[in-house]
Formats: sequence, structure tokens, C-alpha cells
Amino acid sequence: MFKLIHKEKNSAARLGKLATRHGEIETPCFMPVGTQGTVKAISPQELKDSRAEVILSNTYHLFLRPGTEVIKKAGGLHNFMSWQKPILTDSGGYQVFSLALLRKVIDNGVEFQSHIDGQKHLFTPENVIETQQIFGSDIMMPLDECVHYPCGRDQAEVAMKRTVDWAKRSKEFMVHSSKFIEKKQLLFGIVQGATYEDLRRECAERLIEMDFQGYAIGGVSVGEPRNLIYNIVNLVTGLLPENKPRYLMGVGLPQDILEAVSEGVDMFDCVVPTRYGRNGTAFTSAGKLTIRNSPYTEDFAPLDAECGCYACRNFSRAYLRHLFNTGEILGLRLVSLHNVHFFLKLMQRAREAIAQDKFGEFKKEFLGKYNNSVT
Amino acid sequence: MFKLIHKEKNSAARLGKLATRHGEIETPCFMPVGTQGTVKAISPQELKDSRAEVILSNTYHLFLRPGTEVIKKAGGLHNFMSWQKPILTDSGGYQVFSLALLRKVIDNGVEFQSHIDGQKHLFTPENVIETQQIFGSDIMMPLDECVHYPCGRDQAEVAMKRTVDWAKRSKEFMVHSSKFIEKKQLLFGIVQGATYEDLRRECAERLIEMDFQGYAIGGVSVGEPRNLIYNIVNLVTGLLPENKPRYLMGVGLPQDILEAVSEGVDMFDCVVPTRYGRNGTAFTSAGKLTIRNSPYTEDFAPLDAECGCYACRNFSRAYLRHLFNTGEILGLRLVSLHNVHFFLKLMQRAREAIAQDKFGEFKKEFLGKYNNSVT
Repeated sequence: MFKLIHKEKNSAARLGKLATRHGEIETPCFMPVGTQGTVKAISPQELKDSRAEVILSNTYHLFLRPGTEVIKKAGGLHNFMSWQKPILTDSGGYQVFSLALLRKVIDNGVEFQSHIDGQKHLFTPENVIETQQIFGSDIMMPLDECVHYPCGRDQAEVAMKRTVDWAKRSKEFMVHSSKFIEKKQLLFGIVQGATYEDLRRECAERLIEMDFQGYAIGGVSVGEPRNLIYNIVNLVTGLLPENKPRYLMGVGLPQDILEAVSEGVDMFDCVVPTRYGRNGTAFTSAGKLTIRNSPYTEDFAPLDAECGCYACRNFSRAYLRHLFNTGEILGLRLVSLHNVHFFLKLMQRAREAIAQDKFGEFKKEFLGKYNNSVT
Repeated sequence: MFKLIHKEKNSAARLGKLATRHGEIETPCFMPVGTQGTVKAISPQELKDSRAEVILSNTYHLFLRPGTEVIKKAGGLHNFMSWQKPILTDSGGYQVFSLALLRKVIDNGVEFQSHIDGQKHLFTPENVIETQQIFGSDIMMPLDECVHYPCGRDQAEVAMKRTVDWAKRSKEFMVHSSKFIEKKQLLFGIVQGATYEDLRRECAERLIEMDFQGYAIGGVSVGEPRNLIYNIVNLVTGLLPENKPRYLMGVGLPQDILEAVSEGVDMFDCVVPTRYGRNGTAFTSAGKLTIRNSPYTEDFAPLDAECGCYACRNFSRAYLRHLFNTGEILGLRLVSLHNVHFFLKLMQRAREAIAQDKFGEFKKEFLGKYNNSVT
């Protein structure tokens, strides 16, 4: 299922291939986020043209709208959204703990009110897996309890233990449901434990005993200082088995991704390419660029001369600035598309560098240019 | 420049080819509207894929933002917006009279305040042509005075006479400016005269004397009953020379376009495909369809089974409804794209029917199905 192709000589960075029922994913990889069954403002064809191999979608949001029944009748999420490559769905745990109203954690699961209409729902480890089975997700995530930063040790420990318990129930449900066997869906375990090293360690060890098909590092990028993220990533990757993919949830900016790749992380997702794109901030090889700024009024260069995306091949900064200034949708489409392309290309270059045992040099060169931005 | 290819036996409908410096346009044709240098929510590549041959853009809007200077430095509007097929620009007259603040018509031109920042500007027949020369428009329109409906005869007569005077000055400026000869830009005359037949007749006759390269019917679809539009179109097309293209400005819905085609109109533009698309209303062979409506919740058919656009080839009504209900940009992108495709395909089918002297049958068949909509 996961094949470790190459381990870099000078770091923990690694090349891999993850087989799913909708095709292989080369790792390290970036997953554009399609929260509601669409990567915001971008079409599936454009994602394919940008060589996206896998996207992430969100169980909480899709459960609420359009609802599991609609996706079931559509023949699964791939058919519904017209995306025939792999999809990872998160469990909705993060959204229940950050977005839903009046949530109440009980041992059986978590009761919450929809942030849209206030209607009450119950997520259990079992029904969250069942929902993802109906979606036909290639990679499923178990329900977990995610705490915010800062979080006291007692609360973090309770949440971690519940996460482990729910992971066990998720796996049992999956193993005993025949659907899993038919569909060859993968299930990852999520390592929680906030910023407490012993809790992270305990969580990782207990999940590894259960033998998941991959492991995610959850509960990071929730407000903690960046060095704490790096500490956790370093600790957890050191504990995880080498022959399973490692997924750092919700991270992140290019510098964070490269740092985590050098620690041996294989998979990433983040909303920043599309969120920043909608606000007119472009990621470029020379750093971030705010397209509304007046220096771009008569700048007829592309966003990034090194980029080969549709936006950079056809449009100038001056034109994109005009589109944002006049509120035209094509502007946010093009900058979102460029940003997704930029992240995917970054991962492609990272993979090439790892293959040549030159990841450290690549990272240094990339960040040197990226951080020295004058724009 | 304009070649009349075929006159239908059973109506005044005609097939033609209009040569411009960015290629030939087959008529009758529909021009998607790109007011601010972008057809709203649609990329130039998607327009090409939908076989758009010409688009319309707006001098008033582009003059204000990004400004003539930026477009000049970009090497013209085609380069600025990355569209290398024909562009028709309107004169801005209509916008000055409908959108601008505190306009004041003087014989020299029209003073107005920008609707964006209140800054004062002056449009004259001469500077409006010069602006369109800088844009590099393939087809230019002269500054005209457009009145609303209802409009008293005296006011309509003054506006018509001013329009004729400004048309004369526009043509003189164009003929004497060397740019015209280099760039082979075309200039149309605009027939005004509100709903008064004698004024329309006088305007048409005086413009024909000046020998424009095409003639537009302006000041329609400004609030008058539909039968008055048809009367004017019938009257004016009867007056215009056969060997010049005829353009009905700002019209319209499919039934209006087909009616005008049968009267011998060659060119159309309208914002409805994109405006309706953004609001979730799709044009289909079975009539208009409001995608947010609940019957589409579990409707996995495409918008229009007879349509071959990207949206219809890949997505269901249920998915599009979900995108609109969740405020996802891809929804309005796809319905806008479908609508533009629908209008362009309608014109293509109209041309095929005219070529076979079967336009009347085509129109009857199309409208029979279109008007019998059950959705």
C-alpha cells in the first residue's frame, strides 16, 4: 500500500508511493483542500492540469450539506464532484471542535449543533467511518478530539485518551464492515497530545499497536508558536514506523512544509493557497506578493516568471491587480490557481531533490530566494 | 469587410462574415460581455473552448479602471486581457447616461462624474474614438446620447440629432487619424430616435449618408414593451443597407435574439448569460432552470442533456445546487460558462438553419421546447 522508495542521505526526508483505489500518490505530497466538495474557485480539470494527485475534503461540512444521502445517491463523492483521483476525508473532529455550536463530548461520541442551522447531530467513531465509507474516500480519518493552544495537561490527556479509544472503535468498525473490504479504503490513526511530549509519545505508541495504514499528526497549527510545531513533528516522526505514510494535518506555509519534509513527513494539506488566493496574495519564488498594491499598476510581468501555470502564462500582475480592484471573479480564480500550482510544484521539486540526495541544498536555495522577497 | 453569404428564402435572416484585424466573425453572432476587460467569472481559454468569436468590452469602465494609460502600456486591450480574437468596444455613452453621476451634455460632449470616486471627466466624440484606438478595439462605437423609456418627442429628437452630429465628428476624427489606417479598426454608426419612427428613420438615413462600416440599433431594451422593440428593429433593418452588418445593442433573451435574426440582425450582445449564471439561473433547451430550487437536490442529470459544455459533461444539477447553496464560486463559474455556451450554440444552430433556408422551422422548434418548460 505504501512503498518507501528512497531515504535521503542527509536528512530524514523520504520519497514514497501510496497506492489507493483511485491511483497512486507520490510523496511527499500536498493536498489542495476542497472543504465542501470543491477546491474553492478551481475546477477539477484545472486541478488535474496542475498535477494535483489527491485532494482533501471535509466530512463535517459534507455531512451537513449536501448530506450523506445525496452523496450516496450520486454514487460517492468522486462522482458527485467529478474528481476521479484520490480523496482524503478528514473526520470532522476538528470542525466539531472549532466551528460547531454547543458541542458536548460524551464517551459515545460528540453531540453538536450545526453552525448553519443549529440542528443537533451526533458524531460517533462508528458513524463517522460509515459516512466516509459512503463518500467512498480513499483515505479515511477517525473521529478525534482536538484541543486548542494553550491547553492544560489534564484536558490534553483526557482528549488524547479519548482519541485513542475512538481510534480503536473506528478501526474495529471498519474491519467488521464488509464495505471496507470491497472498497479498499485506507484508515489512518491521528496522534494527539497537544504540546506534551509524553502524551504525544503515549498516543503514538498506542496507535502503532493498533496498526493503522498511515499516521497523522493532529492538533498542530492551532495557535502554538512555530518552534513547538517543529518539536512535536520531530518527536512524533521519530516514533512512527518507517513503512507507513505520515501526514501533518493542516500545515502549512512553504517554509513549514519544507521543514517537516526534512523531518520525514509525507503528506500535507492546507487552505492557504486558495484562501490567500481569494484575498489577492500570491505565493511566488521570490516570496509573497499582494496583488492589490500600487507598484503592480503598470507591472506587466507575470506573478512568477518561473511558474508555468495558466495565470502566469497568460496574464500580467497589472491585469490581475485590475481584476481584484474591480471585484472580478477571474482575479481570485487565477491567483488561487497559481497558488495551488505553486504548492504542487514545490512538492514536485522537493521530491526531485530528495531523489538526488540534495534536499537540504534545495531547501536552502528555495528559502533564500523566498525569504529575501523585496515585494 | 462584410460579406453577405446567404439570404434566407423565407425571412429576412442572413448569413455573413465580418472580417476584422483579429479574425473573421460568422454572423449572426452573439458577443459575450466583458464589461471590465473580463467576461465575468470565465477565462479567455474557456471562451475559446466555447467557440466565442468576438466579445464586447466597455470604454466607460476601462477608461475609469484601469485607465487608458495602463491599457496603452500593456500594448492594447487584447494583450492586457489575453484575448487575441475580435473585441467590440461600446462608446461608453450608455453608461454615462445610466451609471455616471451628475452628467451634463454640452455640444462638445458630455461631462460626468465617475460612479466610483466622483471624479469629473469629459467624453467627446473625438476622445472616445481615440481611447478605443488606444485599446485597439476591432470594432469601435461612436459616442451617442441614449434616452430612457418613456421619453418625450422633443427630448428624443435633441438626443438623436446630437447622436448624428457626434457620429459625424467621430468618423471625421477617425478618418483623419493615421492610427485608424494602420490598425484597420472598424467604426459603426448607432441609430437612435427612441420609439419615434420618424426620428429612427431620419437618424438611419443621415448615418447611411456618412457610410459607416456597420450600423447598430441603439436605445432599445431600455424599459419599453417588447412589441415596441420588435417594431423598431423591423423598421430600422428595413432602412439599412444590405451589405453592412447590423448590430442590435444589449439584446437579449433567446426569443428576442431569434426574432431579431429573422428581421435581418447580424450581431447581438447581452449580459444575461453571465448575470443569470451568477444568480444560479441556467438557460437550457427546455427553458430557464433555477438551480437553487429543491427539486434539484437529488437530480443527477446535467443542466441540459443536449449541451456539450464542460459543466454539462461533468457535473449534475444536484452538485451545482450544492455549490450555490454553500456559496462556492465554482457554482457560478459553471452556470455562467454553461449559459455563454448555450447562447453561442444557439447562434451556431441559427446559422446552420439559415444556410438551409429553414430558420423559421428551427425557431419554431426551439421556442416550442424552450417555452414549454416545466422546470
